[in-house]
Amino acid sequence: MRVGILTIGNELMNGRVADTNSSFIAREMNLQGWTVETMMSVSDDFEIIANRLHYLLSFTDAVICTGGLGPTADDITTAAVARAFGLPLFTDEKILAYLKEIFARFNLTWTDNNAKQALFPRGAEVIPNPVGTAAGFALPVKEKLVMVIPGVPSETQRMLPEGVIPVLRRHFPQPVQHTAKQTLKTFGLSEAAVDQKLASVNFNAFGVSVGFYPVFPENHLVLIARSDIQEQAQKNLQKVQEEVAARLADFIFSVGEQTLEETIAAELTQKRLTIAVAESCTGGLIADRLTDVSGSSVYFERGLIAYSNEAKISMLDIPVDIIEKHGAVSEETARLMAEGVRRLAGTNLGLASTGIAGPAGGTKEKPVGTVYIALADGAQTICRRYAYRWDRRRNKLISSEAALMMLRHYLQEMPS
Amino acid sequence: MRVGILTIGNELMNGRVADTNSSFIAREMNLQGWTVETMMSVSDDFEIIANRLHYLLSFTDAVICTGGLGPTADDITTAAVARAFGLPLFTDEKILAYLKEIFARFNLTWTDNNAKQALFPRGAEVIPNPVGTAAGFALPVKEKLVMVIPGVPSETQRMLPEGVIPVLRRHFPQPVQHTAKQTLKTFGLSEAAVDQKLASVNFNAFGVSVGFYPVFPENHLVLIARSDIQEQAQKNLQKVQEEVAARLADFIFSVGEQTLEETIAAELTQKRLTIAVAESCTGGLIADRLTDVSGSSVYFERGLIAYSNEAKISMLDIPVDIIEKHGAVSEETARLMAEGVRRLAGTNLGLASTGIAGPAGGTKEKPVGTVYIALADGAQTICRRYAYRWDRRRNKLISSEAALMMLRHYLQEMPS
Repeated sequence: MRVGILTIGNELMNGRVADTNSSFIAREMNLQGWTVETMMSVSDDFEIIANRLHYLLSFTDAVICTGGLGPTADDITTAAVARAFGLPLFTDEKILAYLKEIFARFNLTWTDNNAKQALFPRGAEVIPNPVGTAAGFALPVKEKLVMVIPGVPSETQRMLPEGVIPVLRRHFPQPVQHTAKQTLKTFGLSEAAVDQKLASVNFNAFGVSVGFYPVFPENHLVLIARSDIQEQAQKNLQKVQEEVAARLADFIFSVGEQTLEETIAAELTQKRLTIAVAESCTGGLIADRLTDVSGSSVYFERGLIAYSNEAKISMLDIPVDIIEKHGAVSEETARLMAEGVRRLAGTNLGLASTGIAGPAGGTKEKPVGTVYIALADGAQTICRRYAYRWDRRRNKLISSEAALMMLRHYLQEMPS
Repeated sequence: MRVGILTIGNELMNGRVADTNSSFIAREMNLQGWTVETMMSVSDDFEIIANRLHYLLSFTDAVICTGGLGPTADDITTAAVARAFGLPLFTDEKILAYLKEIFARFNLTWTDNNAKQALFPRGAEVIPNPVGTAAGFALPVKEKLVMVIPGVPSETQRMLPEGVIPVLRRHFPQPVQHTAKQTLKTFGLSEAAVDQKLASVNFNAFGVSVGFYPVFPENHLVLIARSDIQEQAQKNLQKVQEEVAARLADFIFSVGEQTLEETIAAELTQKRLTIAVAESCTGGLIADRLTDVSGSSVYFERGLIAYSNEAKISMLDIPVDIIEKHGAVSEETARLMAEGVRRLAGTNLGLASTGIAGPAGGTKEKPVGTVYIALADGAQTICRRYAYRWDRRRNKLISSEAALMMLRHYLQEMPS
């Protein structure tokens, strides 16, 4: 099936808001095995909406429209679609009653312009909105289908899978194709390096497609297996996933949607371990990420951001001569920071960073992007040096990622 | 002038990459006073590119295309545009020599497929690429213009203002319209509240348009004045800017592009003040933001993330009975945290946060989103309670913003 996407709104055309719905819808259509032929964005204009809609329908089976369903005068999508096909509007009494109920529940004053959101073109099937007041609709046009849903991304993201796709499946019955999907999140390899490592995997032989999604500093892979038989899709996915996992091994930190922070939170909680951090170049970012998970107070005890040398000496008991001899950015200092914060906080683990985020402060021996990460557990202290070459913010981000990845590997290698 | 935008690439159509070029181009076109009629995205397909291009040209004066200019076989935009208008391709010798020079300079092996990037449709004017190998071109089609530039956002963002807009201005001479632009960044008001406060400003009378850009938790306003005379545009902008500033007053933290962190860095540096932070619910985010500015080691001394009560007691000398009597999330604790970290670090200022980021941990008296922010300078300590109602990450973000805003106001009120 061929699909067109039409996103509607003046805010898109003046560049105030970037359209994120099109790429979301495209991803979902591809998951269904459907082809997105053309995406279009237009302003809230009767004539333009009608013209573009007729054009898109000339080479697609269905057009999915988003936006312009609000109660205010500038939102005209429903009326424009009705006019495009010469249809009158009708009031859906159920939706009208629902709207009035919402207004009553939240003590809002009902004004008649709100009844607009209960109007639909004759012949349309209403698609309920579980998270807002703007219902959508599906309008059959000859053997084709025009579908309209709100443009607020959170509403689009609920109504597309729950409302639009089921109606499309019903209107365009086809040999059912089952899909199985898995996300693998990696850190430590460039997109090109991931690509190269996977060159020998025969994705096609298993009917599996692979998508790369770089989310700095991570690279996410999405594997999608398609088959007429659900079990087969699952089996094929499993086989390819194993091959990919074998090749990317330790670079994978998450199989599924969990973030790096969440996988660490799960391991620390399950193993009943506590942690404290001592940060220099990352400036609090490691602690910020560790505390992004609800319940982090169970494992996260404290963080020390020892930015000045004086803070490193007074807070973490780093001997002055270590800093003078090796520098604040050195393996020796990093190790003592991790050991010091662990001891001070009385935690199982201590994690530390020291480096040069840039753009100033680099030397020939230690250029901008030089970072030492250390992890202490009382028995031993691991330390690694990294060399990055990004701007300040990204050097901080990738350094915090390297620290969390070191922690993740440490936790995985521990016996449960 | 009416403009169409055509972004080309399979990665857009399967949803792997969201198109950010269209909204960038739309913003720039609006700044020029031109209207974007329709935006479209299509796959790397000869027939589809040709059809959509002809369609767009049927109701616009110029079409700006991005994407599909790479050296690999899947990139076909140049050939597709040539074929759409029945034109042969020619090799631009200057570009060919430039490409070979680049390859030699970086010790890359020249293969003949790279010569593809020196091919252009007959009649096209080459648009040089200052940041990559893919040059663009402008092709006159009768009285209209088709412009093609690369789709890599960093290249699009350079070549649009430097290459595309000057050619468009030359091809479509028009009464020169001057623009003057200013960004005002605010925090503390919803978009609706900003809108209401500005309801009495007569933007139209001064030929000024206003754009709202919510960037959580901030709201940015962009004022654009247009006039035939440069000086007049500047004067009108100034007048409207004053009216807006009078109405939004203290909610504005930046006039221009500076971030909140950057405005604070400038004030602290200029006033030769140092700061230390003590964080609980923000988990390191305040320190992370303060250290995002290069040179922050001049004013930022240390940060303490006192997540556990034990850490608050042992690191910051908060008396146990204060925490027992008032709670870790209380005005008393926040004040002592700010005063404690200031004393410990020996800095001029101490900034502290304590609250409940959620989703767990709320009580009836102190629901999720309750946050206390305190700022101590040795002579006095300010403390304020805030009530937010977002998810965990956004509660952390908005709390860090409230803390930085309190610091910003304090610094502004100080005599220089």
